[in-house]
Amino acid sequence: MATGYQGKILRVDLSTGRIWCEHPDDNFYRKYLGGWGFVAYYLLKELKPGIDAFDPSNRLIFAPGVYTGTQLSGSGRSAIGAKSPLTGGFGEGDVGGFFAVELVRAGYDALIVEGKAEKPVYLWIEDDHVELRDATHLWGRSTVETEEVLKKELGNEQVRFAEIGRAGENLVVNACIMQDLHHAAGRTGMGAVMGSKKLKAVAVRGSGKKAIHDQAKIRQVQQWLLDGGKERYQGLQDHGTDGGLTGLSQDGGLPTRNFQLGDFEEAEKITGKTMTDTILKDRGTCYACVVRCKRVVEVKEGKYQTDPVFGGPEYETVGSLGSNCGVGDLEAIAKGNAICNAEGLDTIGGGMMISFAMECFEHGLISEKDTGGLKLNFGNAEAMVKLLEMTCAREGIGDLLAQGYQACIDQWGPAAKKFAIEVKGQPLPMHEPRYKFGLGLGYAISPTGADHVHNIHDTAFTTEVGMGSVQAFGILEPLPANDLSPAKVRLMKYYTDFSLLKNMLGMCLFLPYDPNEMVEIIQAVTGWDTSLFELMKGAERGMAMARAFNAREGFRAKDDYLPDRFFDPFPSGPRKGVSHKRHEFRAALDTYYQMSGWDREIGAPTRAKYQELGLDWVAADLERYGAVAA
Amino acid sequence: MATGYQGKILRVDLSTGRIWCEHPDDNFYRKYLGGWGFVAYYLLKELKPGIDAFDPSNRLIFAPGVYTGTQLSGSGRSAIGAKSPLTGGFGEGDVGGFFAVELVRAGYDALIVEGKAEKPVYLWIEDDHVELRDATHLWGRSTVETEEVLKKELGNEQVRFAEIGRAGENLVVNACIMQDLHHAAGRTGMGAVMGSKKLKAVAVRGSGKKAIHDQAKIRQVQQWLLDGGKERYQGLQDHGTDGGLTGLSQDGGLPTRNFQLGDFEEAEKITGKTMTDTILKDRGTCYACVVRCKRVVEVKEGKYQTDPVFGGPEYETVGSLGSNCGVGDLEAIAKGNAICNAEGLDTIGGGMMISFAMECFEHGLISEKDTGGLKLNFGNAEAMVKLLEMTCAREGIGDLLAQGYQACIDQWGPAAKKFAIEVKGQPLPMHEPRYKFGLGLGYAISPTGADHVHNIHDTAFTTEVGMGSVQAFGILEPLPANDLSPAKVRLMKYYTDFSLLKNMLGMCLFLPYDPNEMVEIIQAVTGWDTSLFELMKGAERGMAMARAFNAREGFRAKDDYLPDRFFDPFPSGPRKGVSHKRHEFRAALDTYYQMSGWDREIGAPTRAKYQELGLDWVAADLERYGAVAA
Repeated sequence: MATGYQGKILRVDLSTGRIWCEHPDDNFYRKYLGGWGFVAYYLLKELKPGIDAFDPSNRLIFAPGVYTGTQLSGSGRSAIGAKSPLTGGFGEGDVGGFFAVELVRAGYDALIVEGKAEKPVYLWIEDDHVELRDATHLWGRSTVETEEVLKKELGNEQVRFAEIGRAGENLVVNACIMQDLHHAAGRTGMGAVMGSKKLKAVAVRGSGKKAIHDQAKIRQVQQWLLDGGKERYQGLQDHGTDGGLTGLSQDGGLPTRNFQLGDFEEAEKITGKTMTDTILKDRGTCYACVVRCKRVVEVKEGKYQTDPVFGGPEYETVGSLGSNCGVGDLEAIAKGNAICNAEGLDTIGGGMMISFAMECFEHGLISEKDTGGLKLNFGNAEAMVKLLEMTCAREGIGDLLAQGYQACIDQWGPAAKKFAIEVKGQPLPMHEPRYKFGLGLGYAISPTGADHVHNIHDTAFTTEVGMGSVQAFGILEPLPANDLSPAKVRLMKYYTDFSLLKNMLGMCLFLPYDPNEMVEIIQAVTGWDTSLFELMKGAERGMAMARAFNAREGFRAKDDYLPDRFFDPFPSGPRKGVSHKRHEFRAALDTYYQMSGWDREIGAPTRAKYQELGLDWVAADLERYGAVAA
Repeated sequence: MATGYQGKILRVDLSTGRIWCEHPDDNFYRKYLGGWGFVAYYLLKELKPGIDAFDPSNRLIFAPGVYTGTQLSGSGRSAIGAKSPLTGGFGEGDVGGFFAVELVRAGYDALIVEGKAEKPVYLWIEDDHVELRDATHLWGRSTVETEEVLKKELGNEQVRFAEIGRAGENLVVNACIMQDLHHAAGRTGMGAVMGSKKLKAVAVRGSGKKAIHDQAKIRQVQQWLLDGGKERYQGLQDHGTDGGLTGLSQDGGLPTRNFQLGDFEEAEKITGKTMTDTILKDRGTCYACVVRCKRVVEVKEGKYQTDPVFGGPEYETVGSLGSNCGVGDLEAIAKGNAICNAEGLDTIGGGMMISFAMECFEHGLISEKDTGGLKLNFGNAEAMVKLLEMTCAREGIGDLLAQGYQACIDQWGPAAKKFAIEVKGQPLPMHEPRYKFGLGLGYAISPTGADHVHNIHDTAFTTEVGMGSVQAFGILEPLPANDLSPAKVRLMKYYTDFSLLKNMLGMCLFLPYDPNEMVEIIQAVTGWDTSLFELMKGAERGMAMARAFNAREGFRAKDDYLPDRFFDPFPSGPRKGVSHKRHEFRAALDTYYQMSGWDREIGAPTRAKYQELGLDWVAADLERYGAVAA
């Protein structure tokens, strides 16, 4: 067993109540690493193709990585995965915080939940003691109430939680899993899977200490992070991830009014600096992190009173509930954020369904009759807040929004389709493809649907300054952002894998490690004589398995698309006239496939690519479904 | 300019007498590295497709790597390349010794010779002083005479030489380039290209010192090599590369009688231990090396008197002139080696043409009428020695052997074809494909034709012991040797690239560096923040360019084959009944192509693969010749 791992995977079957452990060998860990890698492995191994995401046999997988809990900055992260009710394919959400660290301290490299409880339960893990407990009294209650009750019930204030609110209970397809009230595994509807299993919460307390192969090296990295922290993260610390919003709007890259525009006239009102100057109460953090990019906000008066227990909105939330709904009211956004965290709704997905409804409303596809009297114009902050509540509760129009785009289109007519800004059913996060061309391509390619964390933010590589993180890949020269040249596709392919690798290791994207530093850290944690080559092959493996899962579910290359909107030029603003070009986009996609060793029709690895990644078993499995090219 | 490079490439046009320097930028060096990488780059950039290898416009490229001359063991190596007269494709020979180090000390990262002199010349390089000098008086003389004359003429005993003998002058397709009398750039007929240019020798003397970014680290590696030297290299030091010959024969892996058998009844007579006990006079070495695997032999009496100035036979030579000709006489082999080194003939190619003739003779395809009275039975040591001389002089049957297999087949009839043990026209080196299955596949794939130095010796990876050098690639478990499973193909693909990388760096294959140590050394030499990922992409780039060169010359996938012989089982011996299987071989080849991103018909990279390697310019060039798949 490599140092850094616990050598134990905790398994729980809610249908039978069985709880047991598996003990994979060292090569399993070295090959699949953790996070998304574990998720993909178990979904491929254990799910029957074609099952409903709410079928009890779906697996809900909580997967830290080997970096998780190392006491280094950015080591609070993990992945939560399952077959997604939002996309019907590979589902996975990344999350920071403290929960995953506690799971590791309790002695587990992952937790895999299957089956469905007869009545609501929660899982209590205290080191080797693991039990399922009744949660009937918690069903229907918010995350904050749940935690309050459970802390008392367990007699322990130090317990860490992963939990769902009403959104998850109600199977809202954009429901998320909350951790400790303000860390969200937001994407692909993992909260709904947890709800379908009637699992209200996982509570964990661990007394162990993560073993590290070379603690001296880790301390050295810690010191380096501390020494450089002040200057390196000042911006993120001062104003959070929302700090750059005004600049983004000025550049024409801020999603506005359901991605119609790239600039928002009220940007200044909702930018990080304004938050700092107004509603900010404190700065929050994840486990052991010097960056402290999280926000804690409080609104004490008025109609949007907000409890600081829910943290504060990050950039994604400010974009999705703010500019993208045309809302320039930071207090309303803070309130919306608190509702989402209390009820377990992805702020991106939740907000995007509302901006979608707003555009449909403005185009007359729906009226006040459909909205229960709400005037769903862009900029209606009250309606935005109200619709979040209605989504979680599945009330009125909220019941439709809770089911995702297709249900709305079925109801409102096919004209609504062009306002559905999604890939594979997953609403876009707050990054404009006509501003970050490579990221746009990444939306199409991500196995989870539109996604910004296993992707490239190609505006970072336009000057020498940004090149440090890719030079070790042999990419030596800056590239323009609004470009899908083969050179950009190559950068994107490497960087997407690199981002996915961080997920698999349990490492935050905001860490300043260049690739070689990252390798040294993983060597120090594990004692493996590993390399950037091996780790990048690991990421390719993770990506290959996720694409394989989708291929087995019937996804094909045609499902890798970008919404029509982005092939239309911006009608105004700083980037007026700019759009993706269809032929260029298809060519870039094809190039990406070939660079990845993926079949052009199936959109998943060729047999030889599986074999190169040591995934012969995946190829053999997919062959039974005609999902491997000859 | 990265440390470790000189920033200067010396160019000489023999037709015009022009001598000049080019000064590539840092990214050029980081991308193409050196050695084979430079060869492939310049051949692709500067040769017109379809030229005869003896056309004056062919380039003869002497290319050290960035490791060359670092004062570390195994740093005496370089590549010499040109379009090959033997294969008609990408030509390249590896060589150790001292010449390349001297070239680096003189201030050059490579020397590129083009054109053709009107009368024989030699090139004299003394740091910045470079001149072409008349060599009429040297033409027709042996390497040893040439060096003696030139040392006097230049008044310097310390000069290092690359030179040809009569084999090169006479355009023998297996002619090699000798360095300092006993280091040979043996393969693909580079000596004939030098001869065609009427360039008798390159003499070089450098007074510079190679700059190193982190000299302390290099000293540390030096010490590590010295400390571990005794135990690590004892075998190689004691008995040279020929030390394992008896064991090889016992295992059934010793090429015997033109690859008919894998065991030789007289193996004991020609093994390294016997050499040590009989004719060994001294142990030789390349520049700065603790390994000292080279031999110096002397035969003072009898019919095979041999001057120690020519060093001694390595395993390849003992195999090709010995067991593979059925010759169990070590003195005859030593004599044959001396002849080859005096006249500049590749011992492998030279010996293989003789074993071919012997098998044709034994099958009655040729008779004493054809051989000038020689009884060309296997085991006829005198005939073997005689035929080497006749080949270099192009006398009698030697004139046919000098032209390669096809010329002989044209003369002796198509029945001779099955005795031609070659790939792409290049005779096999002394490694039996029915013993090392992966290496057999490698013969088919090597762009230079059958080759053992950019390839895998897959017998090394059958136990845990051998895995250290591939674990950093993520290959964690041993694999059987007589196997072409997809897992083996993957190992082979990575390891072939890794071997090629050593060539591009100028690093001997016998060095004990595992991949990560190698990366650290290159970082220390250059100051680059490079990685195993980037360096392996560099090797893939080198391979891609060589395959591209061949594709432009008309080579296709069908030219990647293994001789029929290896699909027939061994008729006797330890591996009786063992052979390659055609369907398995084709499948493995196809898998290798796909793992490499090569088109199945063209046998060279797809457009996207070129683009991923930053070789858009190669793709664009090849498109004009229909040699890139759409």
